[in-house]
Amino acid sequence: MSFDLVLFGGTGDLTWRKLMPALFQAWRHGKLPGGGRILAVARDQRSDAEYRQYIRERFTAVDEAKQPTEAEFNQFAELLHYRRMDLAQPEHYAGLKQWLDARGADTVVVFLATSPHLFVPVCQQLGAAGINGENVRLVLEKPLGHDLASAQAINRAVRASFREEQALRIDHYLGKPAVQNLMALRFGNALFEPLWRRESIANIQITMAESIGVGTRGDFYDNTGALRDMVQNHALQLLTMIAMEPPSTSDADAIRDEKLKVLRSLKPFTPESVARDVVRGQYKAGTVDGKPVAGYLDEQKVPAGSACETFVALRTEVQNWRWAGVPFYLRTGKRLPARDAHIVVNFREVPHPIFPGTRRANKLVIKLQPEDGLELHLLAAKGGGASLNGQEILSPVSLDLDFDKAFPSERVGGYERLLLDAIAGRLNLFVRSDEQEQAWRWVEPILKAWADDPTGPRPYSAGSWGPAAASALVARDGGAWAEEL
Amino acid sequence: MSFDLVLFGGTGDLTWRKLMPALFQAWRHGKLPGGGRILAVARDQRSDAEYRQYIRERFTAVDEAKQPTEAEFNQFAELLHYRRMDLAQPEHYAGLKQWLDARGADTVVVFLATSPHLFVPVCQQLGAAGINGENVRLVLEKPLGHDLASAQAINRAVRASFREEQALRIDHYLGKPAVQNLMALRFGNALFEPLWRRESIANIQITMAESIGVGTRGDFYDNTGALRDMVQNHALQLLTMIAMEPPSTSDADAIRDEKLKVLRSLKPFTPESVARDVVRGQYKAGTVDGKPVAGYLDEQKVPAGSACETFVALRTEVQNWRWAGVPFYLRTGKRLPARDAHIVVNFREVPHPIFPGTRRANKLVIKLQPEDGLELHLLAAKGGGASLNGQEILSPVSLDLDFDKAFPSERVGGYERLLLDAIAGRLNLFVRSDEQEQAWRWVEPILKAWADDPTGPRPYSAGSWGPAAASALVARDGGAWAEEL
Repeated sequence: MSFDLVLFGGTGDLTWRKLMPALFQAWRHGKLPGGGRILAVARDQRSDAEYRQYIRERFTAVDEAKQPTEAEFNQFAELLHYRRMDLAQPEHYAGLKQWLDARGADTVVVFLATSPHLFVPVCQQLGAAGINGENVRLVLEKPLGHDLASAQAINRAVRASFREEQALRIDHYLGKPAVQNLMALRFGNALFEPLWRRESIANIQITMAESIGVGTRGDFYDNTGALRDMVQNHALQLLTMIAMEPPSTSDADAIRDEKLKVLRSLKPFTPESVARDVVRGQYKAGTVDGKPVAGYLDEQKVPAGSACETFVALRTEVQNWRWAGVPFYLRTGKRLPARDAHIVVNFREVPHPIFPGTRRANKLVIKLQPEDGLELHLLAAKGGGASLNGQEILSPVSLDLDFDKAFPSERVGGYERLLLDAIAGRLNLFVRSDEQEQAWRWVEPILKAWADDPTGPRPYSAGSWGPAAASALVARDGGAWAEEL
Repeated sequence: MSFDLVLFGGTGDLTWRKLMPALFQAWRHGKLPGGGRILAVARDQRSDAEYRQYIRERFTAVDEAKQPTEAEFNQFAELLHYRRMDLAQPEHYAGLKQWLDARGADTVVVFLATSPHLFVPVCQQLGAAGINGENVRLVLEKPLGHDLASAQAINRAVRASFREEQALRIDHYLGKPAVQNLMALRFGNALFEPLWRRESIANIQITMAESIGVGTRGDFYDNTGALRDMVQNHALQLLTMIAMEPPSTSDADAIRDEKLKVLRSLKPFTPESVARDVVRGQYKAGTVDGKPVAGYLDEQKVPAGSACETFVALRTEVQNWRWAGVPFYLRTGKRLPARDAHIVVNFREVPHPIFPGTRRANKLVIKLQPEDGLELHLLAAKGGGASLNGQEILSPVSLDLDFDKAFPSERVGGYERLLLDAIAGRLNLFVRSDEQEQAWRWVEPILKAWADDPTGPRPYSAGSWGPAAASALVARDGGAWAEEL
């Protein structure tokens, strides 16, 4: 199968930091189909050779273990081409079309790694130039809109030129092995499904913590905030994977239909429930990894007095038979104590404890970052005389699965996986427009309530787990975040 | 708490091979209560010093890692005393009574590590001599009878001198950490109980394999056979721990009531069902661990033409709401490929598979020998492009728990645990007379059917997993023994 992968934004951060290293890995793993070309598009004038050199220099900024040898890079670089385009000029698209048609690859993947304000005009131009045939797929990466209206505007522009199945919306969390394994664990094993419901599960916690601050991207971040940056997309996608009903097949649409049903079942927010169930925070100065760090308002390019949230914790429910009454807690933020993304499924306690000592409910921890893995936390008897009044004392143990150890030769990174899926036309891990719009529909009342509320975000010290109100959110139900146990 | 532990059979195999090393370990671990005396009783004349030397010499035959230093042994040996007794002489019991009364320990544990034909007369003598007061506990070790009638005779003799709570019947498999953990896993965790029933479990397999033959004990073994030696006691005890309903407390009698209910629910055998559901085997010459070994009939002291079974496999059911229709397979034998005791809980397959590739049902493996541990076998997605027609390929993974690693400083051996429990009066891990008699009641139709059937046991090659009929037993239901998967 021959393919052409066209990267709009070919000199940008996303391209050289994520996409090129992922493509190189795919190539090195022998997973990239033969007969492929990778065409970077940007506004400067460069030769192919100059572009290859541009990428080569930037490879040193990525993970050391993955560094190519000179020979490897040179071989990989033969796939790389460069084309100057002014994205406002229709004739430049016509030129691109000619370049593509001259080859006539089986598959053309157009990846919009550009500033999001270009999504609408570029889609229009692609359609106008006829770069939207049956063999073309369009890949879009967040931010896909700033609210429901802007997301719908992008989707309208996409739909004007492409069918839904041609539009692949990336949520890079869906490329993580542990996330792919959520489906496999739930529906490839008979063990979990009988337990995966309100009768056995006390609550679900999704945490996506970063220890970094906004760095030099204060202006971008201040227009976004944690709710749009992390909750509307990544956190809700994880939630759907946890909460969905078993799809009848593993086809992309069967899966996405079930995910959409979850999003539609999420308890809608009202101004009152936003005040009660959503906590927004903004970091002030503090200490992370033993080093003092500045507060958000002192970061570069952050407007004075900004009310932008760098932390969100919220409590919601999935209103259906399976999950009625089970709290789902989502939490994300910057300048938290660690880079740590995980999902905790907290099971209910035993209904009638007969052993003394430790009382701790079972939990399943799905680790997404920094490593992928599974931990099943149980209680076991220490055995041998470790007893109290003649009874066993139970102690916590965990059964662990490290995906890197389980499948050492098979592991590929998130972007590598998603790019390969885009080229192969596997849509399972991409987000459909109705999912994405429904997620916006659900978060809009939060955005609106915040806009109407002059009190602004709660301060939290950098290096803490966010405002105390985030703990109270869980404690109110009698629970605690995993790290507070 | 002061105690006296009296070991009848104080110079025998069980004493020096198992009990003394276990007592030494308990002492070394600081778990043996202070103020204890250990009195070995046998028929020869010896001083305390001579007996200590006798034990010291034999310690070298036990596990090297547990060898005491000279100083350690000498300190431990201060607990050891010796007393000559002719077990037929009432005045010798009177002398023992005087020896015990002169001290007046809080607890007296009398361990009958003697030939089983002495159980009845020794119990009578102990009662007659008054060594059966409230502070006395009697410990008995298998074989506890040869059939129901002889077991009942022993129990009658025990009951004539002791209350039921004073009589502790050892099943040393119950001292194994993994067996103790069966209770803890099932009833200390909310995860397993919802699955622990016919709706989720396809079948249960209990395997107790030995690679050794009968060695120099051919005469003893030939009077016993695998059914009496392993099934009536150990295998059925494990089965009860797997199948029991949750007891309302962890008191010994609450647990043993539930175990008894399981034994009473076992499907009774008829001559027809013995022919169909029970396989007896006898090993012939073969190869074990790469070495040629003799067949059973050529072992020392085995009578010519013996029909004694060295292998049993059987299929049974627990006839209650939880387990109706779920096969329980038990299997034990000598000269099998490995020393390997384990329980496999085979879960049902997923009701509606949506992933291609490996179709393998989940299973929980409880490992008893050679190591204690747990393995939970699942399917997971390899992730990253390992897909078939765009779908995830599932691969087997296991979540493992090694009890030695989980609780490195806490582990004590089976006999150590059981002796400490006997001294402390914890009855949970001892077998009650009604359990033991019910187990005999259940195996008797097998013994009778075999006695009436002239065809005798099926031959199997040493080093194989028994007669092919044992595989057929499971295959008939559409399954397979774990090692055949």
